[in-house]
Amino acid sequence: MIKKFALIVAGGSGTRMNTSVPKQFIELDGLPVLMHTINRFHAFDPSMEIVLVLPSLQFSVWNELCQKHHFTTVHRLIAGGEVRFDSVKNGLSSIDSEGIVAIHDGVRPLVGHSTIGRCIATTLEKGNAIPVMPVVESLRKVGIDESTAVDRSQFVTIQTPQVFFVPEIKKAYELGYDPRYTDDAMVLERLGKRINLVEGNRENIKITHRTDLVIASALLKNII
Amino acid sequence: MIKKFALIVAGGSGTRMNTSVPKQFIELDGLPVLMHTINRFHAFDPSMEIVLVLPSLQFSVWNELCQKHHFTTVHRLIAGGEVRFDSVKNGLSSIDSEGIVAIHDGVRPLVGHSTIGRCIATTLEKGNAIPVMPVVESLRKVGIDESTAVDRSQFVTIQTPQVFFVPEIKKAYELGYDPRYTDDAMVLERLGKRINLVEGNRENIKITHRTDLVIASALLKNII
Repeated sequence: MIKKFALIVAGGSGTRMNTSVPKQFIELDGLPVLMHTINRFHAFDPSMEIVLVLPSLQFSVWNELCQKHHFTTVHRLIAGGEVRFDSVKNGLSSIDSEGIVAIHDGVRPLVGHSTIGRCIATTLEKGNAIPVMPVVESLRKVGIDESTAVDRSQFVTIQTPQVFFVPEIKKAYELGYDPRYTDDAMVLERLGKRINLVEGNRENIKITHRTDLVIASALLKNII
Repeated sequence: MIKKFALIVAGGSGTRMNTSVPKQFIELDGLPVLMHTINRFHAFDPSMEIVLVLPSLQFSVWNELCQKHHFTTVHRLIAGGEVRFDSVKNGLSSIDSEGIVAIHDGVRPLVGHSTIGRCIATTLEKGNAIPVMPVVESLRKVGIDESTAVDRSQFVTIQTPQVFFVPEIKKAYELGYDPRYTDDAMVLERLGKRINLVEGNRENIKITHRTDLVIASALLKNII
């Protein structure tokens, strides 16, 4: 049986939420967002090893929250870096065995088991996988002085978890940072690899604004 | 005072919702989606003249729903056409005065008053306006055999209402149909006009899937 890791990255400081509480710690139906996220992976497969990357300044708050909420899901805590790239790299460095790793945003608590399952299955078959969704609204490309309609059917939005073989994604992260990176797939592409797209789930939103919390709370009851 | 029209277009037959009820008639907190939408414009400005375009096959159901829900917001009912373009054109043909028209999707019941206000103000100043939102997730462009990351900051998603001067948008619609049209701004561009982008509101989602109904119900309580 191949070893599976969930590398959950949360680096938010709370500025976009206009709150002093980092968004990963905000309570969603009584439980911090991040605990929902961790539990999604644990419930999907209790044998998955969970690595949580957080800014080291937030370690003590996190430990207090774990006590307060009697949160006992086993996880390893790793210090994040300056940008997401550094945080993921730190998390990967802490994994010394082979296997596959699902790199996931801490503030996506509504990832479906079916999404995780599709990403893992496709990775085992083809080497990597990222979950995507069709763009549901019209899109325009914005230039300096004008904008142009583009065909939305040619685009997909990207979710997480993004799943890779550990040695390969570690190797890609060794090649160094590029400020254009917005996800892990772009890092892997530096090795010349083709990225496999699988279907995500519509509920799997990233909580970045207050509105998203309202949405997430409503969807939590519906998620499978 | 310039005359203002809201042209609300609903043509859905319910197939994507896996329901026999067209999505515009599905109840959201006890009231059909479409009535919420109409009420948003009426509450924004009760002097706005409301034109509702529906498939003629749905007229009797709509009239029954209006009776059932004691829906008394004054509106004119116009028969839609085969595709959205025809429906909008039919609606525009029924407007014989000058003024400005806000063309809006019937299944966007969460449009903010601030969004409507910004679109109208910018139209009065610059000739037209459409509400847009930044893309919040990473984007990839999908080709036949591979996909490429694109810079999401160069793209915006498009909402409605799209607001125009009546004579100008009528003239654009006279130029005829193009299957690539996905919104009214693209029709106006045929006249060589530059489209003005204003900020929409995040809650202003288009209800196309079951998940959207859950989201809309949660947001309805928060909308301003």
